[in-house]
Amino acid sequence: MREFILYARKAATSNDFSLNDLPGSGGRMDLVARCICNALWISHDLRRDSCIHVVACGAPNPPRVISFYGSLLRAVSPDERSIASWIKKAPKGKNPGIRVRKLSFQQLISELASDGKFFYIIHEKGRDISELYLKEDAVFIVGDHLGLPLKEEKFVTRFPHEKLSLGSTSYLASQCITILNYELDRQRMGKRVMLRSGFEPESLARKAEMIGRATLPERRAKKEKTKQS
Amino acid sequence: MREFILYARKAATSNDFSLNDLPGSGGRMDLVARCICNALWISHDLRRDSCIHVVACGAPNPPRVISFYGSLLRAVSPDERSIASWIKKAPKGKNPGIRVRKLSFQQLISELASDGKFFYIIHEKGRDISELYLKEDAVFIVGDHLGLPLKEEKFVTRFPHEKLSLGSTSYLASQCITILNYELDRQRMGKRVMLRSGFEPESLARKAEMIGRATLPERRAKKEKTKQS
Repeated sequence: MREFILYARKAATSNDFSLNDLPGSGGRMDLVARCICNALWISHDLRRDSCIHVVACGAPNPPRVISFYGSLLRAVSPDERSIASWIKKAPKGKNPGIRVRKLSFQQLISELASDGKFFYIIHEKGRDISELYLKEDAVFIVGDHLGLPLKEEKFVTRFPHEKLSLGSTSYLASQCITILNYELDRQRMGKRVMLRSGFEPESLARKAEMIGRATLPERRAKKEKTKQS
Repeated sequence: MREFILYARKAATSNDFSLNDLPGSGGRMDLVARCICNALWISHDLRRDSCIHVVACGAPNPPRVISFYGSLLRAVSPDERSIASWIKKAPKGKNPGIRVRKLSFQQLISELASDGKFFYIIHEKGRDISELYLKEDAVFIVGDHLGLPLKEEKFVTRFPHEKLSLGSTSYLASQCITILNYELDRQRMGKRVMLRSGFEPESLARKAEMIGRATLPERRAKKEKTKQS
């Protein structure tokens, strides 16, 4: 399962924020909703193999982890207001695809690590995404507009992890999630071409196969055969 | 300049839609707002070299083209409600970065074509994005949840164009825009590796240069030199 974690430093941890003021009273609940949308929605469907955990650290009762599961979600629309209204209603437990827990970021990480999960921290000083084959069954950690606190970042590095950069542009958190889903989708369909791996014989062979062209050894063998006959 | 066109078949063309019901009374104005957000916003900044034209074709006064210019935009936040509230206020002309015109899709295309623009139509049957070098100064046309009408698609094909596929996943229109910006950003910083072009000597040389490794001819020349000396 693809899992995302959004660290939302200011996101409200009560249910009385106003749907008419998600950035202010919701503590950037607009950003949270956009991240949930991009983690789970595609055109006319949901990603059934994905989930996102929002670690809300705003007033008045931090921390709180709100998890949305694509496989179980019902009746939610992809607009910010609809998603935020479900976050407000979440403690009532009416949607099987939404779960709220009194849990800290570090407790969540420990829980996922004990399941053997690998972590990718989206980080501007990380390795460029084009250099890496991405593990599909991993957890991708994204900070909000204020970034992931250093203390939390350090905690994650106790477990198997990699820091991952999406390039020199600083994207919105919700855009980072779209890009990660896109790269994983391309990788799954065998259309992701990586920078370093382009030099390895295996990947050149795979590339050749993808575009329906014989590899150099194959072409040589064919030539040899023609000569002999 | 990067330009995007969103064809929004149901988007309201009056200013009395409700900010509390963007999907319904606004005719999927939530989708429109998300597209504008992803075309122009990055973390803590706007893309000054980009603009997006929304062709609104919903009731009661279609068509209407609402253009947002990153270079001139002021006081707008990236949340759906803020962007939609500016669309409502647009005819008053209070934001220099927003312009509303009574214009059809075809009139807009003709206008851009007369400026010598190249068009990319995002299309599931188009050429895969990894096979193409993207023109930076082009217009990218995205359909909404109902897609671009065939009549309008055919009209664009009268002008220099290419149909472009983002892969086998059907993304939300707003996600398509994020992906296009991402691919263009990577290309600009020389980190976009393409599928077919990987076989051309120039691009292999470029790749080698990028990862700081000498190309085969260079390595051979060096070896030759060592032998001679």
